[in-house]
Amino acid sequence: MRRVDLALIGFGNVARRFVSLLDERRERLASEHQLTCRVAGKATRRTGAEYEGTRCADAFEVIERLGTSSADLRIVVETTTLDVTDGEPAISHVRAGIEAGCHVVTANKGPVAFAYADLHAAARRAGVRFLFEGAVMDGIPIFNLVRGTLPLVDIIGFEGVVNTTTNHIITAVEAGETFEQALAKMQAAGIAEADPSLDVDGWDAAAKTAALANVLMDARVTPRAVRRTGLDASTGDAARAALAEGRRLKLVASARKNAAGALELVVEPRALPEDHLLARLAGSANALILETDLLDRIAITQLSGSLTQTAYGLLTDIIAIARTCPDR
Amino acid sequence: MRRVDLALIGFGNVARRFVSLLDERRERLASEHQLTCRVAGKATRRTGAEYEGTRCADAFEVIERLGTSSADLRIVVETTTLDVTDGEPAISHVRAGIEAGCHVVTANKGPVAFAYADLHAAARRAGVRFLFEGAVMDGIPIFNLVRGTLPLVDIIGFEGVVNTTTNHIITAVEAGETFEQALAKMQAAGIAEADPSLDVDGWDAAAKTAALANVLMDARVTPRAVRRTGLDASTGDAARAALAEGRRLKLVASARKNAAGALELVVEPRALPEDHLLARLAGSANALILETDLLDRIAITQLSGSLTQTAYGLLTDIIAIARTCPDR
Repeated sequence: MRRVDLALIGFGNVARRFVSLLDERRERLASEHQLTCRVAGKATRRTGAEYEGTRCADAFEVIERLGTSSADLRIVVETTTLDVTDGEPAISHVRAGIEAGCHVVTANKGPVAFAYADLHAAARRAGVRFLFEGAVMDGIPIFNLVRGTLPLVDIIGFEGVVNTTTNHIITAVEAGETFEQALAKMQAAGIAEADPSLDVDGWDAAAKTAALANVLMDARVTPRAVRRTGLDASTGDAARAALAEGRRLKLVASARKNAAGALELVVEPRALPEDHLLARLAGSANALILETDLLDRIAITQLSGSLTQTAYGLLTDIIAIARTCPDR
Repeated sequence: MRRVDLALIGFGNVARRFVSLLDERRERLASEHQLTCRVAGKATRRTGAEYEGTRCADAFEVIERLGTSSADLRIVVETTTLDVTDGEPAISHVRAGIEAGCHVVTANKGPVAFAYADLHAAARRAGVRFLFEGAVMDGIPIFNLVRGTLPLVDIIGFEGVVNTTTNHIITAVEAGETFEQALAKMQAAGIAEADPSLDVDGWDAAAKTAALANVLMDARVTPRAVRRTGLDASTGDAARAALAEGRRLKLVASARKNAAGALELVVEPRALPEDHLLARLAGSANALILETDLLDRIAITQLSGSLTQTAYGLLTDIIAIARTCPDR
């Protein structure tokens, strides 16, 4: 049996569900993966930071203390509230974890969207792993799929619907609601944020596009390199016009090489033909079509999302670390 | 660098493409996976059997000789023509490989459809692996996806379109052709076999259903346990009637537990609503929706199939073996 010590940096809904999921799967973690996991420390904005019951100054001290643990595996679990325009404070937490000699898993897209190449290189040098399955499409394997099951295959492009709020809004305006009505409903249902601009303006999708391009295509970009068009008051007319032509409007995130060999990253509403795999994704469904060199196109679809799925993204990364990393 | 000796049992189109693919990816196999692969022996119906340039009596002697190789990894690559009603001769070849202390990879669905539990247990006892990614949906990861990227997740059912010939036929009869015309065209195009009954009567889909249920749900069944309805002259009317109601007919392969807890395996034409993920799969596309306990439903879609994809299924299994198996 291998002992795993965890430090939870951020303790909102995702981290809480992660902890309860750990508990629900405790026996199978032991019997199938020979792992026994323990939360050694945590840091939250509201209640402060502590490690082994002792008060710490901040998240960075918790991470540093985790680095001194004698457990077989030491893993920072990063789930803070993200500033999607610069990737902080998640990037600093990831970097601190790596520097303390800990593995790091995160559900935040910021670190991979803004600093993947650097963080990946730092983790390699330190002999630890930095994983982030939950950053795109929750717990549905995207990064682990390509890394683990598609060896020798090159990803040459992708196309996806990766933001749920905008997909809900488009479905509602297609049915005749105004953009403002649709958005208000999403906010009332807790699907859209009080400040919905990050979703609506396409920043969330752009950050996921940069993350996918960085990891799957070695792009070394930030979300600012993504040509970005969001939704606005004109979206209702556009969605209904598309429908009248037998097409469906979707906020599509895509990457492809242009004729000159340059990578074009785009987030924009597109009117897709009805038989396009992305055309009929219902409100909370997401999907990603990978264009590959050997296997043509492969799509993976998440038919619904939930907190459990995001929490599972963290758990699957912990198991991936245990599978590939020897004890120190 | 690890030396891999291969014995090719069967040398038709799939095996030939596998060999050329090995050659195309030779450098990356070495640099990314530290593997150097060599075909040490092969057995074909047409030209006989040989190992290291010496004539052998049959496939079994080739396998036995491979078992004496001093290579770091010894892998039987099984691609014989399958009798889908009993899984032979593939099952015997897999068993012989395991008994000779070799790993075995196959693109045939027979062994997993008819004898998965036995072969898996025998491989475990012998300390070797038995893999078969190409058996369902070619090289698209299904088995490796669940095994490698969905730890702690239980598959509680599935629903898919897994046979290409019947999907082509349904698309054609929807457009107004008769069943006989559609079938004749598929045969002329080389998509349907000269004897198309295995596809048309649903046996191929039933074998894949049994394979998926055995591996993903520990079902211990054979294809005979699948309630099977194929296509026939009435399919055209059924497909057009579905279309008139805004539905699409598909030959659906499914597994689910009924109220009494018994596993129900079914292959049958079903009229699916237009927004069902399987409803709009074009002729050569396949897809599988996995129903899970933690992640709701996940779908994986192969937008087109090819010989390269099936050959890749064998290659990915070889890399999976190298990743998890120490040298002898």
